[in-house]
Amino acid sequence: MSQYKLTYFNVKALGEPIRMILHYMGKDFEDERVSLEEWQKLKQRSPFGKLPTLEVDGKVLHQSNAVCRYLAKEANLRGSNDWEDLQIDIIVDTFQDFRKEVSLFHHEPDPAVKETKKAKILNETLPYYFSKFDKMVEENKGYFANGKLSWADFYLGGFSDSLVTLLGVDIYADYPNLKTWRAKFFEIPQVKDWISKRPQTAL
Amino acid sequence: MSQYKLTYFNVKALGEPIRMILHYMGKDFEDERVSLEEWQKLKQRSPFGKLPTLEVDGKVLHQSNAVCRYLAKEANLRGSNDWEDLQIDIIVDTFQDFRKEVSLFHHEPDPAVKETKKAKILNETLPYYFSKFDKMVEENKGYFANGKLSWADFYLGGFSDSLVTLLGVDIYADYPNLKTWRAKFFEIPQVKDWISKRPQTAL
Repeated sequence: MSQYKLTYFNVKALGEPIRMILHYMGKDFEDERVSLEEWQKLKQRSPFGKLPTLEVDGKVLHQSNAVCRYLAKEANLRGSNDWEDLQIDIIVDTFQDFRKEVSLFHHEPDPAVKETKKAKILNETLPYYFSKFDKMVEENKGYFANGKLSWADFYLGGFSDSLVTLLGVDIYADYPNLKTWRAKFFEIPQVKDWISKRPQTAL
Repeated sequence: MSQYKLTYFNVKALGEPIRMILHYMGKDFEDERVSLEEWQKLKQRSPFGKLPTLEVDGKVLHQSNAVCRYLAKEANLRGSNDWEDLQIDIIVDTFQDFRKEVSLFHHEPDPAVKETKKAKILNETLPYYFSKFDKMVEENKGYFANGKLSWADFYLGGFSDSLVTLLGVDIYADYPNLKTWRAKFFEIPQVKDWISKRPQTAL
C-alpha cells in the first residue's frame, strides 16, 4: 500500500482538496503542517519551492490541481469519458482564475489598494463567477460537472471555507444552488468525518 | 468530422498551443482573431468572458490548458498512463505559475512598478524556473516529460515566442537544453509548416 505525506501550511486552502480526497479514498496520510518559518528552511524540498506537496512512496508531487486529478482516478471521482473530464478540468481552472484574484487581494501590501481590490472582488468578480457557478450547479443536478460528484466538487468544496475567511463574508448568501451544493458536499460521510477530525484553523 | 473554431486575439500566447495541436492533428480550423474592441462586444460569447475559446461542433470550450489536454488525447500527445499524465499536468501548471508572473508585469499600469517587476522576473523568477526546466529537459531526453513528445512541449513551445516578446530578451540564452528543445520542437514537420503559414504577429 502506498505511503502518502501531504506537506502544507496549517490552513485549508490548496491543501484541503487533497486531504479531503485522500480521506474520501480511505487512505491514511501524514498531514504535515509547517509554519512559514519552518518552510523557509525546507523550501528546497519542493520541486519549485511551493506548497502543497504530496509525497507518494517518497516521490514528491506538486501542483494541487494536477495532484487532485491524479488521485481522482483511483477515487472514482473523474468523468466517465474524455468529454466529461474536460468539463471537470474547465470548472477547476475557472475556479483557479477566481481564486487567483482573491489571492492578489490577500497578498496586496498597500492597505488602500487592498481595500479597492477587495471591493472589486465583492462587487464584481464574486457575483460574476458565483452567479455562473450557481447556474452550473443548477444545471448539473446539484454538482459542478456532468450531473454527478467529481473531484471538481472536492476542489471547490475543499477550498471554500478559506474563501469565506479571506473575504470575511458568506460568499454563498446570494446563491441558493451553491448553498445547497455546499451543504450536501459537507454531508458526504467521509467529508463529514474529515471535518470532524481535522485541526481547527481560521483559514 | 468535427468543426473547430478558435477565437482569440491576434497574438500567439494562450491561443498558439491550441492552434499548433490542431494543425499537428491535421485538423482544419477557423482561426478567428478579434481586436480588443470587437471582443468587448462579443464577450458574452465566452462562458466566463475570457479568450481563447474553442468551438467544437458549436459547443464553446474555454480554459486553454483543459482544451489542450482534451485535444491531446486524439493527437496522441498524452502520457501512456496516469503517472505520465500527472508529470505532464505538473509541468504545464508550473509553467502557468511562471507565465502569470510575467502577465502581472505585463499588465502593471504604473511604469516604475512595472520596471521593478520586470527586473525581478529577469533576475530571479526566470532563472529560478528556467534552470529547473533546463534540467528537466536534460533528464527527459530533450522533452519536458516522460522522455517523449507530449502536449507539455506544445504548451510551452506554443507560448514561448510570446514570452520572448513580452520580456524583450532571448529567454533561452543561458539554457542549452531548452535552446535545443525549442529548435527541435520547431522542426517537427507540422509545427514547422504551421509557423510558415501563420499570421506574423509580434506577440
